[in-house]
Amino acid sequence: MLVRSWMYFGVTFCGFVLMIDDTVAQIPQNQPIVASLTEDASVLLAENVLVQGRPYARLVELCDRFGHRLSGSTALEQSIDWAVDELRAAGITNARRESVTVPRWVRGKESLHVVAPRAYPMAMLGLGGSVGTGPHGIEADVMTVSSEDELDALGAAVAGKIVHFDNPMPSWTPQHGSCYGETVIFRVHGAAMAAKYGAIAVLVRSVTARSLRSPHTGMLSYQELTTPIPAAAISTEDSEYLRRQKDAQTPVRVRLQMDAFLDKDAQSANVVADVVGDKFPEQIVIVSGHIDSWDVGQGAHDDGAGVVMAMDTLVAIHRMGWKPKRTVRLVLWTNEENGMRGVKSYIERHQSTLHNHVAAIEADAGGFAPIALAVQCADKQRESTAAIELAQLVAKLSWLNPNQEMTVKPGSSAPDVAQLVPSGVLALGLDTYGETYFDYHHSEADTVDKVNPDELRRSAAALAAVTWFIADHPYPLGISVQVSPGAPESPGGNKHADGPK
Amino acid sequence: MLVRSWMYFGVTFCGFVLMIDDTVAQIPQNQPIVASLTEDASVLLAENVLVQGRPYARLVELCDRFGHRLSGSTALEQSIDWAVDELRAAGITNARRESVTVPRWVRGKESLHVVAPRAYPMAMLGLGGSVGTGPHGIEADVMTVSSEDELDALGAAVAGKIVHFDNPMPSWTPQHGSCYGETVIFRVHGAAMAAKYGAIAVLVRSVTARSLRSPHTGMLSYQELTTPIPAAAISTEDSEYLRRQKDAQTPVRVRLQMDAFLDKDAQSANVVADVVGDKFPEQIVIVSGHIDSWDVGQGAHDDGAGVVMAMDTLVAIHRMGWKPKRTVRLVLWTNEENGMRGVKSYIERHQSTLHNHVAAIEADAGGFAPIALAVQCADKQRESTAAIELAQLVAKLSWLNPNQEMTVKPGSSAPDVAQLVPSGVLALGLDTYGETYFDYHHSEADTVDKVNPDELRRSAAALAAVTWFIADHPYPLGISVQVSPGAPESPGGNKHADGPK
Repeated sequence: MLVRSWMYFGVTFCGFVLMIDDTVAQIPQNQPIVASLTEDASVLLAENVLVQGRPYARLVELCDRFGHRLSGSTALEQSIDWAVDELRAAGITNARRESVTVPRWVRGKESLHVVAPRAYPMAMLGLGGSVGTGPHGIEADVMTVSSEDELDALGAAVAGKIVHFDNPMPSWTPQHGSCYGETVIFRVHGAAMAAKYGAIAVLVRSVTARSLRSPHTGMLSYQELTTPIPAAAISTEDSEYLRRQKDAQTPVRVRLQMDAFLDKDAQSANVVADVVGDKFPEQIVIVSGHIDSWDVGQGAHDDGAGVVMAMDTLVAIHRMGWKPKRTVRLVLWTNEENGMRGVKSYIERHQSTLHNHVAAIEADAGGFAPIALAVQCADKQRESTAAIELAQLVAKLSWLNPNQEMTVKPGSSAPDVAQLVPSGVLALGLDTYGETYFDYHHSEADTVDKVNPDELRRSAAALAAVTWFIADHPYPLGISVQVSPGAPESPGGNKHADGPK
Repeated sequence: MLVRSWMYFGVTFCGFVLMIDDTVAQIPQNQPIVASLTEDASVLLAENVLVQGRPYARLVELCDRFGHRLSGSTALEQSIDWAVDELRAAGITNARRESVTVPRWVRGKESLHVVAPRAYPMAMLGLGGSVGTGPHGIEADVMTVSSEDELDALGAAVAGKIVHFDNPMPSWTPQHGSCYGETVIFRVHGAAMAAKYGAIAVLVRSVTARSLRSPHTGMLSYQELTTPIPAAAISTEDSEYLRRQKDAQTPVRVRLQMDAFLDKDAQSANVVADVVGDKFPEQIVIVSGHIDSWDVGQGAHDDGAGVVMAMDTLVAIHRMGWKPKRTVRLVLWTNEENGMRGVKSYIERHQSTLHNHVAAIEADAGGFAPIALAVQCADKQRESTAAIELAQLVAKLSWLNPNQEMTVKPGSSAPDVAQLVPSGVLALGLDTYGETYFDYHHSEADTVDKVNPDELRRSAAALAAVTWFIADHPYPLGISVQVSPGAPESPGGNKHADGPK
């Protein structure tokens, strides 16, 4: 096959050795040519994924067969088994489960009713990790605040009350993205903030810029709280109702009932599968998504999309019969949503080979068209060098998203792979055109029909290209090198990629 | 006040008499000048409503104090009392309830669960008027169809099954509007269609082009069915799930539980209030919206918006101290959603004066910016003449919606006032930029936060202008006239507007 012959020519042509030296900024003269060939191969892989990949078919199967996949659920374990089976069926026989102990939070029954001034049921979802209210529920007056300053100003006045955080999320823009990070603060920390003043529960405006009375859950953190208080998200509509009552100085009383509790830990697993490198097999490039989801919707954009994209990358490389210089490792993280135990367990298990993890990329920004690569490294020099190198590739992938110029964004990555940054790993996140991502995120609306097959395929193609680019790059991405014949080929001494082949 | 002086000058200047003759197409030479003055006054009224109107404040009060307002509910009756009180407080002392007997349909508890291939709860809302399933519910296999032809082809094969209608609603466009009429057919008639082949229940894809797992209810018609079957709307997401299972030939079994039943009739009322005409007081121009809603959300766009716009029209005319030639009658119809008993009762009660009802306009297309006037008449000649006359006014109102040229659309009007068409009344509907209208329509998402105060004000201003234009027009709109001094001033013999003043 033409493509394959060309490729092997490229690989052979580029067969040279590198001497790694973090302190040397100089790029050898032959690097641009070599990198360019790697870029071209990456683009070919992207084209192949675009034509032959089947991320959408897999996503439909994952979503419809198993539905949402919270840690501790049967659906999650079935999904993990399914992914292993799918990979093996595609010929990747080393696909395996790596056992992970995960928390098992149980939502149980829950409801929120306004008692006064007019009885009506609010659209709510308990926050992940919240404690319950006890069987009799909690009835109390509501105090609405929009900021931590406002809460601090109220201070002890919120004792015995239910604190309501109403901070609207701005709309997504291509320039500024979602403002999720700024907006999510009260969902994560609101309970701890309010409890320290004696509040008995918190209600948090759902973190979304668009709503059809649709509450959005997500993790909270009780921090050092010794007596955690129940916390629930309410729809933006209900949040605005409370805001209007506050503005009109109309007292509101509500009744909150949540059966939520933290059950015993459960057994889960990361899915791990490798295409072993033929030059530096001990060096590992992770391509990943997370297979768990919240217990609503189908976890389609978050992160079924990332799962099937990452699967497509490995399957495509295997299908092509290509051998990257480094080992490409697919990881489908478990428990990203409420504990990050998947990646933490991976770090523990693979501690001795982490220094050989060249990079880890994760797709966890929805199944829309690709718009950016986020790149993050503890070594900021490496981060910026890698960003420059990736920019050259990204320029050749612009056809994957004709509507939006793809960029490289240094300084961030994606949730699981960011945990590898302290270990010196270059972490990357595939960002997508997420205009509607947070409309669905962590809600009943995150279903497979929200994913456009063409957009998903384009992001899958981008993920494959970036993964190949890093795995087959002449030198570890972002590390400046000097050509010095006879020098060691690898940054680490371990010649063997860990895990079964 | 300058405005008022100018106005009275206009009215005085135009003090002439008309001879009505349906067969004469000729417009007198002085009509354009006269009509132009009426247009200018209409524009002044629109400006006044835009600045001094308070439709949004009233809408917030209506929605937040009473919530949704289904016929037979306490909330509806409280809303009606509130509207009368509001009008009286604004100085319109003849505001009154006109009693109407309405049906009382009760939703009760309801749920829909997929039993196989994977258990999960669907997002559903029973259709208005549906019978219940009995206490034990109905469990059966689902058969999915997209058209009546497909159902007919299945025929008796659906006996004992639950028929699922999956016909997606196209997105709204300014050119073609919502496609609601074409799409709603299975919500209205699906139960009757399927029951005749022995189906035991129907599930209908929600009539919306956008969904966040949000089911939309609405009325069904059992037609001549002797044994009605339960019917529910499901979210588009759940509908697409069923469609995918059908395409994959995966059988789906569901359990439907609905406690719905039709209770005894209840007492409700239309709200009626007049600003009496000073030249043809017996001639009536109705300006209206409907005050009832479905039993979800807040009935904000449907049709709280129409209610407060119509109230603003009457209040503004009263506030200005203007006297239209004809009586302007505000009507807030009850029971539009599930019976049209409000307008039917009005027709019965006012039968003897219907011939003096010159026109009836209704705002029931949401509280967005105005884009069109729909105009409908049994006499098609009058309809097209009225459309031409209205087009001249509408051209002067274009500033009310800088983003979209306002048009006049002959051939349709609005739900309640369309009932007056057989009585010879010119019926009009105010259409708005309803791109998102059906995202909210008949769902939990129809809440006041979805209404933009500025857009609502612009439509309120348009409604006031059109109402004034018709009420103060030198001759009944759409009726060609000849000037003939000494001829009767009025088309009917009754010199007295009906109802208290």
